[in-house]
Amino acid sequence: MQVEHLRWSASGALRILDQTRLPGEECWLEIDGLDALVEAIRSLRVRGAPAIGIAAAMGLVAILRSRGALGDTGAESDRGAGSGADSGAGAGASARERFLSRVDETAAAVADARPTAVNLRWAMDRMRRRAHRTQGGPEAVLTSLREEAQAIWDEDRATCSAIAEHGQALMRPGIRVLTHCNTGALATGGIGTALGIVHLAAERGLGPHVWVDETRPLWQGARLTAWELARAGISHAVLPDSAAATLMAGRQVDIVLVGADRIACNGDVANKVGTYALAVLARYHEVPFYSVAPTTSFDPACPTGAEIRIEHREAAEVTAPFGVPVAPAGSPAFNPAFDVTPAALVTGYVSERGMVHPPFEE
Amino acid sequence: MQVEHLRWSASGALRILDQTRLPGEECWLEIDGLDALVEAIRSLRVRGAPAIGIAAAMGLVAILRSRGALGDTGAESDRGAGSGADSGAGAGASARERFLSRVDETAAAVADARPTAVNLRWAMDRMRRRAHRTQGGPEAVLTSLREEAQAIWDEDRATCSAIAEHGQALMRPGIRVLTHCNTGALATGGIGTALGIVHLAAERGLGPHVWVDETRPLWQGARLTAWELARAGISHAVLPDSAAATLMAGRQVDIVLVGADRIACNGDVANKVGTYALAVLARYHEVPFYSVAPTTSFDPACPTGAEIRIEHREAAEVTAPFGVPVAPAGSPAFNPAFDVTPAALVTGYVSERGMVHPPFEE
Repeated sequence: MQVEHLRWSASGALRILDQTRLPGEECWLEIDGLDALVEAIRSLRVRGAPAIGIAAAMGLVAILRSRGALGDTGAESDRGAGSGADSGAGAGASARERFLSRVDETAAAVADARPTAVNLRWAMDRMRRRAHRTQGGPEAVLTSLREEAQAIWDEDRATCSAIAEHGQALMRPGIRVLTHCNTGALATGGIGTALGIVHLAAERGLGPHVWVDETRPLWQGARLTAWELARAGISHAVLPDSAAATLMAGRQVDIVLVGADRIACNGDVANKVGTYALAVLARYHEVPFYSVAPTTSFDPACPTGAEIRIEHREAAEVTAPFGVPVAPAGSPAFNPAFDVTPAALVTGYVSERGMVHPPFEE
Repeated sequence: MQVEHLRWSASGALRILDQTRLPGEECWLEIDGLDALVEAIRSLRVRGAPAIGIAAAMGLVAILRSRGALGDTGAESDRGAGSGADSGAGAGASARERFLSRVDETAAAVADARPTAVNLRWAMDRMRRRAHRTQGGPEAVLTSLREEAQAIWDEDRATCSAIAEHGQALMRPGIRVLTHCNTGALATGGIGTALGIVHLAAERGLGPHVWVDETRPLWQGARLTAWELARAGISHAVLPDSAAATLMAGRQVDIVLVGADRIACNGDVANKVGTYALAVLARYHEVPFYSVAPTTSFDPACPTGAEIRIEHREAAEVTAPFGVPVAPAGSPAFNPAFDVTPAALVTGYVSERGMVHPPFEE
């Protein structure tokens, strides 16, 4: 029943369900190169803060494995290691050292693919640390990294389940949940975060109804959340983001559940653009507003939302969706991918540790 | 410079610039049949409360003229009159009486095309009254109706200019205006309402900048407002509706100017869906929020917003824009065309009479 969208291929490559093609097509990509991985993350073929972290970790392994299998070419720009043999490039460095350099460089390049989601950087840091503390040559390090990537995935699956369980405290029969973007299985390695709570409530027979913000400009709500809910047989309706206020005014929303791409120590939440507007509207209409995220989305290095770098994306996402111009050619656009919701507007935070409260420390 | 989108054809038909084809194509339609007029209004080929009223009045004349020219067919379903000759159908009724019945029936059918904009009903009522108080046969009544339609148009042009003039009190050099939907020349018979204020400010060298809400689901902001602003050389950028909150939080919006499809006596405003969310956001961020509309959009028969019937439109507008599915096939959608902003959130109302304040009476 649960949507699967990440896999290892038989050859050890990363396979992802291309989310830009949903709901029309279920198209799988096989990735074992740095450019392809960065492109997949930048183009949102895999998206959702936890899922990006997992895909990046798996992809890092696939890239290192693929180049390792080809052996060290010795080209000047190639710092890669073969399977333990020092072929002469970077004379003086051991195969292990050269491989660790490749791990660091590749992980740094992957971490730069998108700036806002903290899970991406977190996963790459974790992979680098694991590499450096693993004894032995490239093969041993690679094996260890594959275990680490799998562990990141497995832990996220368990985290999602724990979040969903804790979130049941917010559910009741027939509850009407408004959500934004996609925070379900497609955004994670498990049942989801905010939407995972709804999935579990439905499994337990509470009959939730979900109001799905379409989530312009990339329609993650309409394309992905509605797709997941339809597959799960959960009652839902898609709406233009700007119509959420009408639902709240009509007392048709019992709770707002959203995810998070990064949560600062003071509780400020960076999440998909549109989240902040919902938080203001929820406060005005006295609708509870919860941010739901694994602790990996909490950034101990980030004191407040003011320090979060917001990714701005190209105008064409707004002005020419699917290549169809909806604005005159060359129209300027304001297209931040995320916004920041101040902690004061957040009723509560649900993580795998339960209901948590700022300030958040490591 | 000013956009022209309504015309009389040489033969007396209504010509409209098909706004559903903008900004890609400038395609004119010639309308002299009831079905075509109703379809054009329902499908938003002509839209904007004042423009709908004008087009409906002109279209009514075109329909009556066209059928009048064909003569009375005498068919059972045809209550039409020829050019004054009583051809036998509806025996006992004079040609004048039969023609007035046709006026009433046609006007009633046109008035039903869309339920929310009050200008449509207002224009049809006005045309009916003019017909009934005109002496003479069908030709005399038709001539009179054509004058009345032209008067409605001319008055709206003058009204727009007066609104723009009064609105200058809200302008200042470099002002950053956020707007929703289209309230410019394309929405009226003149320079526009809310956007007319900006057009005039630009003409006077104040260099306004306009933040253009794209206005899902039908992109009137991106398609029409950006098109008008680009033609007029006014600085602007298009944004997803949900990103307006980010601009306000960043103190990049000095004022919100929106139009109105109907204003109740207590000051509640029905306008394009998304307006209410902006009003809540503007209040939260202490940004002034003005509703700009001709007095024809004020409905003396409507005590409060609760009495305004909101048009709900088909799911496909949300789930399959331009026929491209963005949600799984058959996805339910919540798609109200309008919302209601309570008077308490409106800083002020600009009409051709200046700044006005509720309660509004006839």
